Amino acid sequence: MTTISQTMFEAIETELQHQVGRLDQPRTKQFHEMLTYHMGWTGEGAGSLATGKRIRPLITLLSTSSVMDGKEDKNINAMNWLHAKSAAAAIELIHNFSLVHDDIQDNSDLRRGRRTVWVKWGAPMAINVGDAMFVIANQSILDLVAHYPAEMVVKAARILNDCCLDLTRGQYLDMSYEERNDLSIEDYWPMIGGKTSALLSACTHIGSLLGYANDEKQEAYRLFGYHLGLAFQVQDDILGIWGDEALTGKSAASDLVEGKNSLPVLFALGKNGAFANRWKQGPISVDEVGAVAALLEDEGGKEFAEKMSEAETQKALDYLKQANPQGEAGEEMLKLANMLLKRKQ
Amino acid sequence: MTTISQTMFEAIETELQHQVGRLDQPRTKQFHEMLTYHMGWTGEGAGSLATGKRIRPLITLLSTSSVMDGKEDKNINAMNWLHAKSAAAAIELIHNFSLVHDDIQDNSDLRRGRRTVWVKWGAPMAINVGDAMFVIANQSILDLVAHYPAEMVVKAARILNDCCLDLTRGQYLDMSYEERNDLSIEDYWPMIGGKTSALLSACTHIGSLLGYANDEKQEAYRLFGYHLGLAFQVQDDILGIWGDEALTGKSAASDLVEGKNSLPVLFALGKNGAFANRWKQGPISVDEVGAVAALLEDEGGKEFAEKMSEAETQKALDYLKQANPQGEAGEEMLKLANMLLKRKQ
Repeated sequence: MTTISQTMFEAIETELQHQVGRLDQPRTKQFHEMLTYHMGWTGEGAGSLATGKRIRPLITLLSTSSVMDGKEDKNINAMNWLHAKSAAAAIELIHNFSLVHDDIQDNSDLRRGRRTVWVKWGAPMAINVGDAMFVIANQSILDLVAHYPAEMVVKAARILNDCCLDLTRGQYLDMSYEERNDLSIEDYWPMIGGKTSALLSACTHIGSLLGYANDEKQEAYRLFGYHLGLAFQVQDDILGIWGDEALTGKSAASDLVEGKNSLPVLFALGKNGAFANRWKQGPISVDEVGAVAALLEDEGGKEFAEKMSEAETQKALDYLKQANPQGEAGEEMLKLANMLLKRKQ
Repeated sequence: MTTISQTMFEAIETELQHQVGRLDQPRTKQFHEMLTYHMGWTGEGAGSLATGKRIRPLITLLSTSSVMDGKEDKNINAMNWLHAKSAAAAIELIHNFSLVHDDIQDNSDLRRGRRTVWVKWGAPMAINVGDAMFVIANQSILDLVAHYPAEMVVKAARILNDCCLDLTRGQYLDMSYEERNDLSIEDYWPMIGGKTSALLSACTHIGSLLGYANDEKQEAYRLFGYHLGLAFQVQDDILGIWGDEALTGKSAASDLVEGKNSLPVLFALGKNGAFANRWKQGPISVDEVGAVAALLEDEGGKEFAEKMSEAETQKALDYLKQANPQGEAGEEMLKLANMLLKRKQ
């Protein structure tokens, strides 16, 4: 049997292709191809591994549908989660725009196992590809006007752009930290709030808005997304140091080698102990990974991060309960949250 | 006596500072400074030479006011061009976002006589600065909702983003031409339509919309802006080769040395004569500038460009007449158009 999530995945992919298709014109075929390559539809390695998981647009549509399913006074014409599809596409395009620019900023050669856009076509073209994706994201969210009152469209577009400003703030903080030597745990949350949580809270906020949730319910959905993002990021930080792949895989798999300012690292830097001393002396080699990870664990970095992860997970689940998602979409949302929050490598 | 343009310039600058001020927060002071530096307000060389002319937002507000002044049935509360100020700011921010990214893409060290953002803070930060400006531009246009019905806000935001997609198309074409050897005059208009005319037509289109012009009048304003942009760009192309500074100034002042695909050049490339042969052999040195410019003139490049400039100027003025701008703003718009179209170096 087809689940609602499967139906949504198909609708998302179709809508994304429709939106990106704006560039599919005689003189800009190659430009269009740069976007379809990054989206995972064309070029070497195209396919489901290359597209990414489309988690964000799925959460958006599950939010819309799980609010709609709770409405007693159903207006069949208005109550269709498909009407929100261009908002879901907008959010996925924002995510991908930021990835294309991130890869240039971080000098990353690979994304989802494939060469990055800037490696294939050069940084100048890749900057422009990201810009175009961002424009198309805005065009997509404004396309909501075909199915929603203009007031709601303006509100959705404002939520999306407020979130995007948070993304640039988080990105600024992340880059500025590379040159700082006085970081502590207080520097973590504003960065991650922008880089990870802003977009996930936009998914659940916009999604619930488009399900015609009242302000209170929108706020519960928004906070669910926000804390889901924080919990997920902290888990990712733990796995990046103590996950199997990080400890036993190739060097690049460990966040310690990459010098990433993750939660355990910032916690320990604030302690100014042996780990901080080693960290400030320069890059950690693959041979040291095990010893430095053990040092970090000794100083309480792992325990602290696990505590924070649990706390954020609990907050996310509390807000989800408060949001009270209904119907099949509500069940899928709960399953998805549990999967994201309890995932093991 | 203070002209309406002077009043508008002040309103534009205040609104721009208000909008960019979104980043003026404890942890992002330096990020905010990167934007205020580029906008010409802070850092070395700050001041009126560094801000640029703010022609685009001025044209936007003159469009709004010159439509409002023609309304017989005046509703004093609604008929205030100041209500359109956040749209004017949005357009100027789009212009500046594209400049910040252009400077990275073109590897340009200087902008308006000052070091570019990427030279001062590095390309990764500069990409993020441009992204933030684009976000704030979208936030600005959505701020219109304080003074306009949501339907009009959505329409204005759609015009703005459609224009931005044209900007990325024009930018793509411009960059892709660097690797091509088969260019001709047909390749010029799609590039320039995106790079220069799209934004100017958005100014007059959005401006007239916000003056409550009907569809027919909006179309006249839009086409005025579009052809104003084309005429202006072609003139700029002529001055870039045969202007005093280009012929007698330092090498970088000539578009021939920069290898720019301007209208005269593309015209002559299509002829495949002596100029085309020389062009395809590689960069033109400062010593050759006079001789190559003469060759280009002999092959009809200058005459053709002048003819096109005249034709586009005439179209722009015809559409401006059809738009029939009223009041002091209408007079200023006519003056401004004449100034832009008949400017001599």
